[in-house]
Amino acid sequence: MSRKVGVVLSGCGFLDGSEIHESVCLLMHLARHGLEAVCMAPRGPQRHVVDHGTREPVPGATRDIFTESARIARGRLVDLATVAATDLHAVVMPGGFGAAKNLCDFAFAGAGATAHPDVARLLRSMHAAKKPIGAICIAPALVATVLGKTAHPTLTIGDDPATAAALVQLGAHHRDCPVTECVIDHEQRIVTTPAYMYEASVHEISQGIGKLVDALAVMLAGSGR
Amino acid sequence: MSRKVGVVLSGCGFLDGSEIHESVCLLMHLARHGLEAVCMAPRGPQRHVVDHGTREPVPGATRDIFTESARIARGRLVDLATVAATDLHAVVMPGGFGAAKNLCDFAFAGAGATAHPDVARLLRSMHAAKKPIGAICIAPALVATVLGKTAHPTLTIGDDPATAAALVQLGAHHRDCPVTECVIDHEQRIVTTPAYMYEASVHEISQGIGKLVDALAVMLAGSGR
Repeated sequence: MSRKVGVVLSGCGFLDGSEIHESVCLLMHLARHGLEAVCMAPRGPQRHVVDHGTREPVPGATRDIFTESARIARGRLVDLATVAATDLHAVVMPGGFGAAKNLCDFAFAGAGATAHPDVARLLRSMHAAKKPIGAICIAPALVATVLGKTAHPTLTIGDDPATAAALVQLGAHHRDCPVTECVIDHEQRIVTTPAYMYEASVHEISQGIGKLVDALAVMLAGSGR
Repeated sequence: MSRKVGVVLSGCGFLDGSEIHESVCLLMHLARHGLEAVCMAPRGPQRHVVDHGTREPVPGATRDIFTESARIARGRLVDLATVAATDLHAVVMPGGFGAAKNLCDFAFAGAGATAHPDVARLLRSMHAAKKPIGAICIAPALVATVLGKTAHPTLTIGDDPATAAALVQLGAHHRDCPVTECVIDHEQRIVTTPAYMYEASVHEISQGIGKLVDALAVMLAGSGR
């Protein structure tokens, strides 16, 4: 039976959507393990459209989270609103500001963040079913926003003290981690890797994401689910 | 001395720009070899903006090739018009319809294609300087458009007979090649791999692109340039 791993996208580009390199490295490592990626995204307008050449928001511009995410997914993705935990064996969220702007509002509200209701629903039901959850770069802030106060997971966002402090305020434990490694919370079945929370090369972030996927594959092999 | 490899982008998304998975795998394998990627793109409107969810062109929509390419390059890219062969040790073009719509018009004109003048200028001067050229997926059609009649390079676009025939009409030789391999023209110093010319996984296309970059690295190590 093919194991299905949800990949929650939030647009296409690190300043207003999913970080592209992290998303592709994730898809590549899932394919390396023979795991089936099920790409998904919510419908609705991005919080911002940012010109990635100038790094400035484009006044008045609007793009749809789902439509832009489809670029990374090569057109094969589903509406997050239609996905239930029973459809998946695990779920992973790449980083990029989209994870902190479109899937929750951590980029604006920090430790007072709230999550997109469909993301919150899916993460809570995956966690309740003891299905593995992965998060890359800033996406652990989304996990902390949804599960921090109830599950108190151990997460990493690298070694940035201010972001780590916000995760702790959200109820999580934080552990520093280099870019080529990941942090595994075996009890909560949550794996995180810092990726572009560091100024790193795409080869380095791919190594950390590879270890995250390795850890998820071990959990899935052991679970019998 | 760091070896600089130009990466010519054509937008962000396989239906109207650069194929995202191929571009990221290329950047990752360049980083694995310690080669410095110099991302570049022309300025100017994309030929199309395509909704990657529905696969339909968006009537009246316009996006700039350079600005969208900046999403893949994480904001670090240069205007192709300013790049000379003396700035680079090698150059590679990922695929995606952008290579055949924005960098040349092969998608519309087939064997009658002409190339964007700045791409044509750079490829001709790289080839004249015997600097290695790489092309992925449909981008070998761009190489054939620019260099077919003069250099008669041996290229691959996988095993599609109609596309291969068009490359031959443009003056190239064609060799069938599986997705995980590449074709090396040692005399012309041109390396090609088919990638998403096949229905393949991102793990498979990454293996072919990895071998393309391996071959370029060998050429660069041997050239002393």
